[in-house]
Amino acid sequence: MSDVKAYAAQSETSGLAPFGFQPRAPRPDDVSIEIDYCGVCHTDIHFAQNDWGRTLYPVVPGHEIIGRVTAVGSDVSGFQVGDRVGVGCMVDSCRQCSSCEQGLEQYCREGMTPTYNGTDRHDGLRTYGGYSERIVVSDRFVVRVPEQLDPATAAPLLCAGITTYSPLKHFGVGPGHKVGVLGMGGLGHMGVKFARALGAEVTIFTRSESKVAEAKKQGADHVVVSTDPEQMAAVALNFDFLLDTIPVHHDLNPYLETLKVDGTHILVGMIEPIEPTVHSRNLISKRRILTGSLIGGMPETQEVLDFCAEHDIGCDIEMLDIHNINDAYERMKRGDVKYRFVIDMKSLKDA
Amino acid sequence: MSDVKAYAAQSETSGLAPFGFQPRAPRPDDVSIEIDYCGVCHTDIHFAQNDWGRTLYPVVPGHEIIGRVTAVGSDVSGFQVGDRVGVGCMVDSCRQCSSCEQGLEQYCREGMTPTYNGTDRHDGLRTYGGYSERIVVSDRFVVRVPEQLDPATAAPLLCAGITTYSPLKHFGVGPGHKVGVLGMGGLGHMGVKFARALGAEVTIFTRSESKVAEAKKQGADHVVVSTDPEQMAAVALNFDFLLDTIPVHHDLNPYLETLKVDGTHILVGMIEPIEPTVHSRNLISKRRILTGSLIGGMPETQEVLDFCAEHDIGCDIEMLDIHNINDAYERMKRGDVKYRFVIDMKSLKDA
Repeated sequence: MSDVKAYAAQSETSGLAPFGFQPRAPRPDDVSIEIDYCGVCHTDIHFAQNDWGRTLYPVVPGHEIIGRVTAVGSDVSGFQVGDRVGVGCMVDSCRQCSSCEQGLEQYCREGMTPTYNGTDRHDGLRTYGGYSERIVVSDRFVVRVPEQLDPATAAPLLCAGITTYSPLKHFGVGPGHKVGVLGMGGLGHMGVKFARALGAEVTIFTRSESKVAEAKKQGADHVVVSTDPEQMAAVALNFDFLLDTIPVHHDLNPYLETLKVDGTHILVGMIEPIEPTVHSRNLISKRRILTGSLIGGMPETQEVLDFCAEHDIGCDIEMLDIHNINDAYERMKRGDVKYRFVIDMKSLKDA
Repeated sequence: MSDVKAYAAQSETSGLAPFGFQPRAPRPDDVSIEIDYCGVCHTDIHFAQNDWGRTLYPVVPGHEIIGRVTAVGSDVSGFQVGDRVGVGCMVDSCRQCSSCEQGLEQYCREGMTPTYNGTDRHDGLRTYGGYSERIVVSDRFVVRVPEQLDPATAAPLLCAGITTYSPLKHFGVGPGHKVGVLGMGGLGHMGVKFARALGAEVTIFTRSESKVAEAKKQGADHVVVSTDPEQMAAVALNFDFLLDTIPVHHDLNPYLETLKVDGTHILVGMIEPIEPTVHSRNLISKRRILTGSLIGGMPETQEVLDFCAEHDIGCDIEMLDIHNINDAYERMKRGDVKYRFVIDMKSLKDA
């Protein structure tokens, strides 16, 4: 079988460049997918640069994948050749633990198999992600993309979308709730769309007066400039939920004080020690909850695509040719994208 | 009206000594109480020593109060002279905010009025606590003590008891749940009793092998020595709830890892910055909850007394004459009490 064309990082400093690999032999439960679009997530940058010290080079990033089915294994009944499908952040899990049994494969006791930088549970091969012509994935980890969805704007739903949708659903956000969204990037702007679609009143926190107009454009009912003590004091004890998508260290304490009694602060953007630390008074004195959430399980990943089709929700994207990926990374590091890059994979085939 | 005999601290270094004050004029909703027993809480020490920098001297500590009604105001219908009653950590609140309306007076938007070191909302006088012959309290903040309860062992239910009972009830602890209790003092040992009475399987964490026997004696189903990495690894992903009564800084991270997916770590013992800080991975990777809880509202404070009567639960106490209170504080600082001192107020009257 011929090499699959892809883009990979070869080292912490190499940047992304063309790369070819042999695809793995399809198994009876596999779906073979030709990739049309792949969203670019901040996690891709972290792995390309080995920010977390666990990159296995060469790494082919990409876990916001939309494509079409080109072949299915003998055991696959849910997908047919030609179907429009998606693949997100994971391609396998133990399938037997209580989390997997509940469709919460992201919390698999043994650990899920990530779409890239992972090791296949069966053949021990490296997993390669969506910056690629093709991918082969077990049917349990493939979702259907409703026809109504634009496939390019749907790509980021597989990570940025599900990551924000899942906790809002899990913690029961709905009409009558006040939700604050921290961070205005790929995750944050999806959080605003979902919280509004679920019926909540949404406030965006921004550090800068200059971003208020942009925040309003994202559909927020209200905007609070978090660096203004008066504005923060005015929303003390105001929110039922905070969806915190900020990817860098920030002080949670002033935000916690804006939560009502029994309010919930949900971390989805930063996997780091919480610094500055939280004062326990801000939890104890109002029985507030600090929690976090990781992407979503496969049933809920299907649900978010269906929800977006029903509510006409897509990610705001900027289309990208794959040969510009390194420039795109630089722009993302500066926060210069509204709000997600999506690679048009035709640019890889044409290369 | 004659002076009320009490014990007060006059400064950070004075220790406790006899003190007299004029009682406030009773109001129509007031219950006048002759105090029989008062539990000694670590918070009393913090206020006597001004550890939190907000002590108003002279301070009469004590918020685990059991006594008998000696008079009631004209508007009081729920209590009669001679009734056995209790008073806990608060004696008033705004009574109008949504928390107060829900019987969650401890989370009053305006702040509850503490039993001591507070300021009366009506006459502006200092509130004095239970190290005293008598106290006058609005009927809403007085609870009935069921006849079946021993009044001395019931005293600590008003703080140590409700503080541990309330979160276990609020977060739904029951049969089939595994609960870990951190800390083996006044709060911890009550937490064990409640969690077991609610039907949960209870594990005590202790730092020292030498305390395993004591932990078993407290009624734990299991004991884990938290300083033994093997024992901690054996309970990874094991618990539904952790009730954390540890009153000093400790690393929450190893404990968080013992929680299942969606498990809940409840802080009740320490109002301080959380140091070392929590790694957000320990929340996000399993959607775990970190929260805290403050005493309990008045309906639930009545409920805990009724629950203890029904389940034959009392605090394990050591009876104390009030003239030994300064020695008792020193012993408490060394953790040398099993598990709560209760002052016999006869010793004050006889003095």
